[in-house]
Amino acid sequence: MTQPSDYPHHQSVQTRWHDNDIYGHVNNVVYYSYFDSVVNRFLIEQGGLDIHQGEVVGFVVESQCRYLKPLAYPETITAGLRVGKLGNSSVRYELALFNARQELCAAGYFVHVFVTKASNTPTPIPERLRHALAALVC
Amino acid sequence: MTQPSDYPHHQSVQTRWHDNDIYGHVNNVVYYSYFDSVVNRFLIEQGGLDIHQGEVVGFVVESQCRYLKPLAYPETITAGLRVGKLGNSSVRYELALFNARQELCAAGYFVHVFVTKASNTPTPIPERLRHALAALVC
Amino acid sequence: MTQPSDYPHHQSVQTRWHDNDIYGHVNNVVYYSYFDSVVNRFLIEQGGLDIHQGEVVGFVVESQCRYLKPLAYPETITAGLRVGKLGNSSVRYELALFNARQELCAAGYFVHVFVTKASNTPTPIPERLRHALAALVC
Amino acid sequence: MTQPSDYPHHQSVQTRWHDNDIYGHVNNVVYYSYFDSVVNRFLIEQGGLDIHQGEVVGFVVESQCRYLKPLAYPETITAGLRVGKLGNSSVRYELALFNARQELCAAGYFVHVFVTKASNTPTPIPERLRHALAALVC
Repeated sequence: MTQPSDYPHHQSVQTRWHDNDIYGHVNNVVYYSYFDSVVNRFLIEQGGLDIHQGEVVGFVVESQCRYLKPLAYPETITAGLRVGKLGNSSVRYELALFNARQELCAAGYFVHVFVTKASNTPTPIPERLRHALAALVC
Repeated sequence: MTQPSDYPHHQSVQTRWHDNDIYGHVNNVVYYSYFDSVVNRFLIEQGGLDIHQGEVVGFVVESQCRYLKPLAYPETITAGLRVGKLGNSSVRYELALFNARQELCAAGYFVHVFVTKASNTPTPIPERLRHALAALVC
Repeated sequence: MTQPSDYPHHQSVQTRWHDNDIYGHVNNVVYYSYFDSVVNRFLIEQGGLDIHQGEVVGFVVESQCRYLKPLAYPETITAGLRVGKLGNSSVRYELALFNARQELCAAGYFVHVFVTKASNTPTPIPERLRHALAALVC
Repeated sequence: MTQPSDYPHHQSVQTRWHDNDIYGHVNNVVYYSYFDSVVNRFLIEQGGLDIHQGEVVGFVVESQCRYLKPLAYPETITAGLRVGKLGNSSVRYELALFNARQELCAAGYFVHVFVTKASNTPTPIPERLRHALAALVC
């Protein structure tokens, strides 16, 4: 899990001025917003997730990140995404962030449980979404 | 000032999941982070601004934005940048954000006053920076 | 408009670690998130705005801020709020931020146009909301 | 570790309008900014950490959060902080977030390694800081 090719899906992530904190590096919190954005874009574009009107939403129940090398604005990051575990109503996304020299700078994961908006109870992952996610299982 | 060609410098801006607020559009605050990031990247890459070790920093003294059409994640925005006024130690950046159909969605500006870190007093804009900014004066 | 007593409504604003940017001050963008939070909390708590299920939402059409003195984490800020103009479906909020020594550090405004979620067209400000806002007109 | 009294240090955390995401709850990323802010304020106020001029900085090498119950703006949160492990140059902070009914809504940790700014290499935790942290070891 130490190079981009270990991950079946990639996205380019653009840093922002205020991703840097007072120490001049991307703040540890911001890494999770990269994870969040990469995954949701995949779910929307590849899995048909409708974040505006859809009946099903993914709630994050756990997340983690290990920070290996600092990132900083301005820099373009390559994010890698794989699915570590695809359950009935939950999925574990595993992500890695690489700098321009393809060095692994951070690795993390988060777990989505899909629920119906109306009842707020877990629901099987919709078929189109599951199909897209299945392609990322390693 | 209603189309990309009215602006001499362009950057592509990537939205993030949490740019959207509870109403499903990019939150009004986030537009300023797009402005901030576009300008600073220009200053760093074209003007040689050193945000880590440099003696000169730009402080924002005023900013404004008008919101014309909503933007939303996931969407790629084109930002246009021009310099409205280039003073001795201050500069007024004028920015516009366009959606994929090239519609003007927001327009704004902010004013930087350059100061020396040590004394915190205004200082003439460094030569290389001024040269880069002069190319954006319309 | 230079002291807290010029504003009929006050809130205490807590800064966060990452409000500071690389220069060690609260980033210019973050001021707008203070404005946003102060106003919406007022609208919810005093005006009965229902941000989750309500039929009426406030869209920001213009905002501005002038930065007078730097703020920095950790610091507790006093925000003052007044209503500059209360129209049929729009309202102009005027805000000021004061540090612990009651010095004016920033002043700004933003304009909400209230629309119905369903049609996305302007709608008269609901009665309870109008009543709360009217008390802040100076 | 399920109630405020399990943690020796507490802070009140103010939510912001844009902490909520499109689903109407505090976005998962934002929890880490609460952690970050609670810990750094403690380090600054109790441990004498100088984030502007200090020679020693804390870098986050790992963080994690489990989300148990949703939080939402506007809401005031109570954060609890304890030190899980106090090493020579590193410290593990354990945090919990409670809502107004004192229900545990999230629990997490992060690990700081203290380094000298100049050499970027690990350094023993400064004495005053260590003293403050030692009081939070459970």
